[in-house]
Amino acid sequence: MRIDLNSDLGEHFGSWTMGDDTSMLEIVTSANVACGFHAGDPRSILGTLRAAASRGVAVGAHVAYPDLVGFGRRPMTLARAELEADIIYQIGALQALARVAGTEVRYVKPHGALYNSIAFNEAEADTVIRAIRAVDPELALVCLAASPLVEQTEAAGMRAIPEAFADRAYEPNGALVSRREPDAVLHDPAIVAERMLRLVQTGTITARDGSEVTVRAESICVHGDSPAAVELARAVSVSLVGAGVELSSFSRSL
Amino acid sequence: MRIDLNSDLGEHFGSWTMGDDTSMLEIVTSANVACGFHAGDPRSILGTLRAAASRGVAVGAHVAYPDLVGFGRRPMTLARAELEADIIYQIGALQALARVAGTEVRYVKPHGALYNSIAFNEAEADTVIRAIRAVDPELALVCLAASPLVEQTEAAGMRAIPEAFADRAYEPNGALVSRREPDAVLHDPAIVAERMLRLVQTGTITARDGSEVTVRAESICVHGDSPAAVELARAVSVSLVGAGVELSSFSRSL
Amino acid sequence: MRIDLNSDLGEHFGSWTMGDDTSMLEIVTSANVACGFHAGDPRSILGTLRAAASRGVAVGAHVAYPDLVGFGRRPMTLARAELEADIIYQIGALQALARVAGTEVRYVKPHGALYNSIAFNEAEADTVIRAIRAVDPELALVCLAASPLVEQTEAAGMRAIPEAFADRAYEPNGALVSRREPDAVLHDPAIVAERMLRLVQTGTITARDGSEVTVRAESICVHGDSPAAVELARAVSVSLVGAGVELSSFSRSL
Amino acid sequence: MRIDLNSDLGEHFGSWTMGDDTSMLEIVTSANVACGFHAGDPRSILGTLRAAASRGVAVGAHVAYPDLVGFGRRPMTLARAELEADIIYQIGALQALARVAGTEVRYVKPHGALYNSIAFNEAEADTVIRAIRAVDPELALVCLAASPLVEQTEAAGMRAIPEAFADRAYEPNGALVSRREPDAVLHDPAIVAERMLRLVQTGTITARDGSEVTVRAESICVHGDSPAAVELARAVSVSLVGAGVELSSFSRSL
Repeated sequence: MRIDLNSDLGEHFGSWTMGDDTSMLEIVTSANVACGFHAGDPRSILGTLRAAASRGVAVGAHVAYPDLVGFGRRPMTLARAELEADIIYQIGALQALARVAGTEVRYVKPHGALYNSIAFNEAEADTVIRAIRAVDPELALVCLAASPLVEQTEAAGMRAIPEAFADRAYEPNGALVSRREPDAVLHDPAIVAERMLRLVQTGTITARDGSEVTVRAESICVHGDSPAAVELARAVSVSLVGAGVELSSFSRSL
Repeated sequence: MRIDLNSDLGEHFGSWTMGDDTSMLEIVTSANVACGFHAGDPRSILGTLRAAASRGVAVGAHVAYPDLVGFGRRPMTLARAELEADIIYQIGALQALARVAGTEVRYVKPHGALYNSIAFNEAEADTVIRAIRAVDPELALVCLAASPLVEQTEAAGMRAIPEAFADRAYEPNGALVSRREPDAVLHDPAIVAERMLRLVQTGTITARDGSEVTVRAESICVHGDSPAAVELARAVSVSLVGAGVELSSFSRSL
Repeated sequence: MRIDLNSDLGEHFGSWTMGDDTSMLEIVTSANVACGFHAGDPRSILGTLRAAASRGVAVGAHVAYPDLVGFGRRPMTLARAELEADIIYQIGALQALARVAGTEVRYVKPHGALYNSIAFNEAEADTVIRAIRAVDPELALVCLAASPLVEQTEAAGMRAIPEAFADRAYEPNGALVSRREPDAVLHDPAIVAERMLRLVQTGTITARDGSEVTVRAESICVHGDSPAAVELARAVSVSLVGAGVELSSFSRSL
Repeated sequence: MRIDLNSDLGEHFGSWTMGDDTSMLEIVTSANVACGFHAGDPRSILGTLRAAASRGVAVGAHVAYPDLVGFGRRPMTLARAELEADIIYQIGALQALARVAGTEVRYVKPHGALYNSIAFNEAEADTVIRAIRAVDPELALVCLAASPLVEQTEAAGMRAIPEAFADRAYEPNGALVSRREPDAVLHDPAIVAERMLRLVQTGTITARDGSEVTVRAESICVHGDSPAAVELARAVSVSLVGAGVELSSFSRSL
């Protein structure tokens, strides 16, 4: 049994910092690194890439809408040609910084509002897929597990990496419970760790109505933006490793 | 006899346009393409790269300080690590867009205040040279002819492309006459064309005191930001070609 | 009979220019001046304000989403508190520049995607209205004529200025024909001038199905982003003045 | 005896936070609030202004060069007309937000590289003074104590507020010890508090060579960007109050 743990890193900007990258790089096997559009200035990105490279953590491009003040979390409507070029630009910038840091970009994970949108918006997803393929068809695309994007990516001849979210509640149909709902986010490390172990062992997660939902995931997303989040991520890692699950980047098998 | 003609292109931003790229791409053999820091949004950059690729014009990264409102023309003091990462980021972004456009980045030409600063500031030039080398030591660096930067670049093991400016007056020592001086810029296409032909044929330019100054140049920079500038660039091209000078990118010989 | 002519001005940014402000300031009675979020850097804004002041043209704040590269034309979803503060910020910045230029901000006209959204989105419109009222309840709000926003503004105790668009075709219900339709934009200065004269004289516009639609308008929006647009604006002005219509800012009557 | 305590606040940006504004607003009597050019998005600025207003802390405009990624700390050379309009824009934006928050802008304190530059660069200082005067000649300008800017401001008919820095070492001539020197910054709250009490009581500070230097200050700048900084600021406040010094904004006496 094997799984990847990914986390959003490199989300600093100039004099501002966010999250505990150092701690998270000891836990995860894949680092989604901001590319400057929702976070990340070139110097801080390079620092994150060097830290990831030195720890053998795989690197992905965390591409986003061009909305620094909104942290890429605000829905935006871009023209197809705008979005396509924006994504190529971000991947390319990260590729050069990654090479200088002694590593390389293995995958793409859209961030924030773009992530949520393309999971279900086929036309916008098509633009993102085209942009990635145009840069390098070997790049994998990390997708919301059970979303239409997984099949759409594979149909385009690209590798899709479906991911589960460690700290999120699930609907019986495999969708995430909306953040607007009261119980959308889980906070108990023991419960979260047990859920993720079961996911890896059985391919199922208990939905919020108690039913078992099948979730095919090759990666688990954990967060590191608070001490509690880091602790939760560590609990997931410890639980998996303790049960004999191998933690390694999906890109190892490319 | 052979020379390269280069020009600053792709200097649009969103809904704003600048210069007549289409006309200039019929004239020049190298296009210095903005990378988003002083001008250029990803979509417009990609359009410029496609147009350059379709005409066989070589492409260079026109890297700049991060100053969109000042168009990269305002002196700024960046920390070494900031400038280095900024340059890597810009080159990488352009490389990916260039690949998608069916071409590749062959050289780097710093823009505006950064260009002026590194011609004589050895420490800052060293940072730029390191950044370029870290991305790809095969990239050439376009430098002000007769500036210390030419030797510094070559001493670092990189190819320097010294360039002359078609529309600028020269001091007896080979420096450009400052734009603050009344006669810094030449406007007569016939005079400019004749000066550039002599430069290619004899390696000399008449300085403003009437003396002959030796200027070793492998490229001539022409501008396209006004109809008069395009006409002047065309006059230079016509004059050179009429005299049997081959116009071709210096990167052909890489 | 009296009407106001308004136009979007001050839409430069740094080294980039847009439109022919000088010509338009000879034609219009109200200038919608960009505030830096979709266009306009402080220096160019101040220049536009001084030009407007010297010609006695009234000034309004052309507030927008924070999207320079998209020129404020891309739909965005902002949190209520974000949009409210963004609008206050923009109005305030323009107020100070206007005072220095010897004039003052008389009204607000949202720009681009924000303009289109609040014409029909009551919740977002409420945020805009609150923001304006918080700065100065005496500021008028220029609204799409026949949209729900007109009544909503007046119900909030603010002055609404319904406006018609000189160069746009109308649906029988008073809505603008979508720009995606082939005949959405009118180009013939004579036809446009005649339509606007009838609007002022009779309060009606001929819709695209030939029916007459009642449009209550206190201002007419004309554009100046091309020589043809300036010519069209001038034709409207000449036609109205020739028929004895007084052109003056609605803010004169405040 | 009376003195003002000022601190840089509102230095958040979007999802990024900086400093402990809440704690600092319990300590200081004047809040230098970022205006969006080096830090501060409109929503977070408004929040800071409301917090300052509710605690009766006076508000000043912390104007800066347009350099978000560099936090306004990088030297830049702006044209006179650029800098002038940039400052007017920032003050105006803050004025409107302040009015909405129930307070008003009482003074201007330039930030970072701009602060350092105008303390000794008379031409650039003149531009800043003109810009402030153009907006409102009643606004005070907070200046480095013992710098030429103090007299220059007063000669222009404006009120200068000379300030001392609680945590900085002084040269015998009254200048700050450069941050490049090892002992430039003081960290011991007891020593800092004692120095500031002596400053208020005697108008002198012990320079790093042990000599006594006369420093005329109407305000003391304290920082709040770390828990240690907040503790140090609190020590200064407690020491002064304990000795019977009244802490109040200099703008009270306007």
